[in-house]
Amino acid sequence: MSTTVATRLIARLREIGIEHLFGVPADYNLDFLDRVYASELAFVGNCNELGAAYAADGYARLRGAGALLTTFGVGELSAVNGIGGSYAESVPVVEIVGAPSTRVTAAGLPMHHTMADGDFGRFERLHQEVTCDRVTLTAENAAEEMDRVLRACWEHKRPVRIALPTDLVDAPAPDPDEPLLPEAQSPDAPVLEAFRAAASVLLADAARVAVVADHLVERHGAHEALADLVAAGPLPAAAMNMGKGVLDESAATFAGMYIGAASAPVTRRTVEEADCLVAVGVLVTDANTGGFTHAFPEGRTIEVQPYRTRIGRAEFGGLPMADALAVLTDLVKGRAAAELPQPAPRVPAAEAAELTQAVLWDRVAAFVRAGDVVVAEQGTAFFGIADMRMPAGVSVVSQVLWSSIGYTLPAALGTCLAAPDRRTLLVIGDGSLQLTAQEIGTFARAGAAPVIVVVNNGGYTIERAIHPTDAPYNDIAPWRYTDLPAAFGAGDRAVSFRAATPAELAAALAEAERADGRLVLIEAVVDPEDYPGRLAAIAAKYRTPAATGGAA
Amino acid sequence: MSTTVATRLIARLREIGIEHLFGVPADYNLDFLDRVYASELAFVGNCNELGAAYAADGYARLRGAGALLTTFGVGELSAVNGIGGSYAESVPVVEIVGAPSTRVTAAGLPMHHTMADGDFGRFERLHQEVTCDRVTLTAENAAEEMDRVLRACWEHKRPVRIALPTDLVDAPAPDPDEPLLPEAQSPDAPVLEAFRAAASVLLADAARVAVVADHLVERHGAHEALADLVAAGPLPAAAMNMGKGVLDESAATFAGMYIGAASAPVTRRTVEEADCLVAVGVLVTDANTGGFTHAFPEGRTIEVQPYRTRIGRAEFGGLPMADALAVLTDLVKGRAAAELPQPAPRVPAAEAAELTQAVLWDRVAAFVRAGDVVVAEQGTAFFGIADMRMPAGVSVVSQVLWSSIGYTLPAALGTCLAAPDRRTLLVIGDGSLQLTAQEIGTFARAGAAPVIVVVNNGGYTIERAIHPTDAPYNDIAPWRYTDLPAAFGAGDRAVSFRAATPAELAAALAEAERADGRLVLIEAVVDPEDYPGRLAAIAAKYRTPAATGGAA
Repeated sequence: MSTTVATRLIARLREIGIEHLFGVPADYNLDFLDRVYASELAFVGNCNELGAAYAADGYARLRGAGALLTTFGVGELSAVNGIGGSYAESVPVVEIVGAPSTRVTAAGLPMHHTMADGDFGRFERLHQEVTCDRVTLTAENAAEEMDRVLRACWEHKRPVRIALPTDLVDAPAPDPDEPLLPEAQSPDAPVLEAFRAAASVLLADAARVAVVADHLVERHGAHEALADLVAAGPLPAAAMNMGKGVLDESAATFAGMYIGAASAPVTRRTVEEADCLVAVGVLVTDANTGGFTHAFPEGRTIEVQPYRTRIGRAEFGGLPMADALAVLTDLVKGRAAAELPQPAPRVPAAEAAELTQAVLWDRVAAFVRAGDVVVAEQGTAFFGIADMRMPAGVSVVSQVLWSSIGYTLPAALGTCLAAPDRRTLLVIGDGSLQLTAQEIGTFARAGAAPVIVVVNNGGYTIERAIHPTDAPYNDIAPWRYTDLPAAFGAGDRAVSFRAATPAELAAALAEAERADGRLVLIEAVVDPEDYPGRLAAIAAKYRTPAATGGAA
Repeated sequence: MSTTVATRLIARLREIGIEHLFGVPADYNLDFLDRVYASELAFVGNCNELGAAYAADGYARLRGAGALLTTFGVGELSAVNGIGGSYAESVPVVEIVGAPSTRVTAAGLPMHHTMADGDFGRFERLHQEVTCDRVTLTAENAAEEMDRVLRACWEHKRPVRIALPTDLVDAPAPDPDEPLLPEAQSPDAPVLEAFRAAASVLLADAARVAVVADHLVERHGAHEALADLVAAGPLPAAAMNMGKGVLDESAATFAGMYIGAASAPVTRRTVEEADCLVAVGVLVTDANTGGFTHAFPEGRTIEVQPYRTRIGRAEFGGLPMADALAVLTDLVKGRAAAELPQPAPRVPAAEAAELTQAVLWDRVAAFVRAGDVVVAEQGTAFFGIADMRMPAGVSVVSQVLWSSIGYTLPAALGTCLAAPDRRTLLVIGDGSLQLTAQEIGTFARAGAAPVIVVVNNGGYTIERAIHPTDAPYNDIAPWRYTDLPAAFGAGDRAVSFRAATPAELAAALAEAERADGRLVLIEAVVDPEDYPGRLAAIAAKYRTPAATGGAA
């Protein structure tokens, strides 16, 4: 069979590691869907498009890229908040939008799913704000334009939109004459040498060298290069909130989570009092820095970003992150072993009659095992797990910057399918779950079996923490969470437990260990005014900058 | 207490009939929410922002305006498809977006819910494509700008976005010195006379005068002016799909639904063979015209639009719809009574052992009573009710142009609250329900008690009709629909029934008559390949223009 626009696009998605396409069928994308079903790309039908976008995002965080299929107007606009989150958090997601035919568009017909004003460019324009590139394919440009946009997605690690008019699905397209992704180029030698010289000077005078790492390490595939650097010292290494999981937290090198003034004292000293700090893939945001209370040593920080490295005022443009890290690893190797200050060990929560957030997160911490994928909703759930010291090889998926509640449930569908051999543990609050709960039914259909811990505290407790009020707007409908899997059609592919005491939680987690391929939902009932320790400490600071302007 | 930006905004919303504010609490809007709770505006917390946008849209269709509250970035982007639908279908919805403080914005801080790039204008720019006007309030402009944008919403009957920075909530604002809405102005006398003269010539030669009416009649408050015109003849009057409900279908003047070639023969003749056709508030779209198969008599059509009337090539600018209709009513009064061709009476479905779509819609038709609000999801549900001849005073809410599945469930929440003394009947397919099902829990909290008929045919049957396939993508998770109200916390404020036979359906509908303030959910089980009659006839035509370019 000769190559068509559809088969070529599917082949290109497969080239960047995409084996699953999330989405919702709708008339403008049915022809393309038929071609997907005839291919090696598996379609996963979501309940709605926002769920599809979140799932593709979660998938991309583990796989390196993800994709979803929507329809023109209505479908893509339902997904746009998910796409915005992928943009903010640097996640490469490809959105394919089934669009009206070229001829309908040229004629400006007042079609359904449009504003009936002949303006078919609205939704592409709207996507300028949430994608790094976009295109509406034509018969003339389909091959080169899909390649261009997919490369932009890969290079910038940000979402793109590809609109595919119905009449082009089966239009002929040339076979690719080169791989989608160019071979890695050697970095510019003079820049590399200049960087080596500058770093070498800084390191020579530094007794205490430390590392702080964030999410862009993972996104840009520099995970191993960073591990090499940390091991070469060995160097003490702290992680930022968005970078939770990029470091091996079981290693002696792990120095804790760095969140500015909200950090543990030992972590704060390690980072802020370093003679030389290597900051890798760090993004300064309010929630990533305890409300802009971070303090990286001025003039003694080596900032390594994906395509740019900086020491003081010296910029070294175009250096791939992994190459910059390799230079630092070389330089560090010859040094005497650094002191490795250890964060205080976790104190297990005491035996208690009542299920508090402290007890809950203590038990969840004990449940996590090496290699798990922990998906943590922004809110009390993320605060609950942020201080856990994770076993080796644990991936953490959260949304610290974009902070769109409801994100993690569909994202966990994505991680389950992206890494079917690993266990996904989702921790999510009740208020967040209610936004996207219906995708629980999609887990069962797709053969995905996460462990889901739903924190039932009767509403939006993070808002109760940052903005105390007597008004009832933070309360939500009293769902029967343990009934959801059955109501959503999971049948015997799911089991549910309600835990209102530590003993019930222990029993439920023990059952989860024996779940045998079934989805496990555990409803953990805690008090509405009970906050995880770190949230209580951060709440005031967290709010201050928004209200006063703060200091960046 | 002196007037503030928040209290002034709330007062202006009340002025245009808004008593309920839908939305989701989030940090950037909590201060405003506190002021809402201290006011006469009732806050209705939705499960997610898309639900809030749909609810505000449904509310606005009955009340004349609706409003929702979201938060910057994540919240508003989740709502954007609902706002897009309001734009397409000319529904005046005010979206208030809680935004970061003026100082944070001026400093360009990398805050959560942003792209952390200092660009706080992204989401306002994005809304250019789905709103008719928008503003970010400042201390200097808050009063006049909120008035300007709210007037635009009212005049154009389209959504607007008002961003309210947290620090302005309690900033002082001047009291309004005039009402928000200007008094109706008399139309320009020479234009009115020119229109009267032109219409008079056309009507003088016309033996058969007919009316075709669409949704813009309702949106622009010309409902009674239209009823006067139809009664004055009396004139036979047909409705377009988007205008279902604008005519009294129980009257002898009702000539059926006009959908181009897909119309009943008598309706088609009435419209297309009229010597003079008055087309009121008509929007030509594919789904409104049976795939552009409409044929209004050329040169003999008087097109009355909200602010513009046309006869052949003569345009009469600036004429309010109601004034133009009043002129026509005057002219028609002196004429001999027109013939009133009656659409064929509905043939009640025969007694049957099996529950088919034909039987289902027959029984639903018999259930509808005068004054009901019928909310019909685009899909087989709308096709099922479109041919029902409704009792007097029935309002129909649907989304024929935008056609975003899942719209009607939250929209029905809006209609329940907008018209608490009327019964809301929601008819929706299972595939559509799954997009927004969680708002069932919101009904119970808000004291809203609709009758919901869920058509369970195992998936997206409208797509099976327009694009037959063996691939399973139109199948969905097998939810247990009757379990949903209890799972979503409705407790004893809801009852559910499953009807797989005509007898079970009859029993369930009888129970619905006795529901006594409780929400009633009826799951009607029909065959996946069973389509309502009109859909089967239209499916091929409906699809043709999209595939071939068709003819407008």
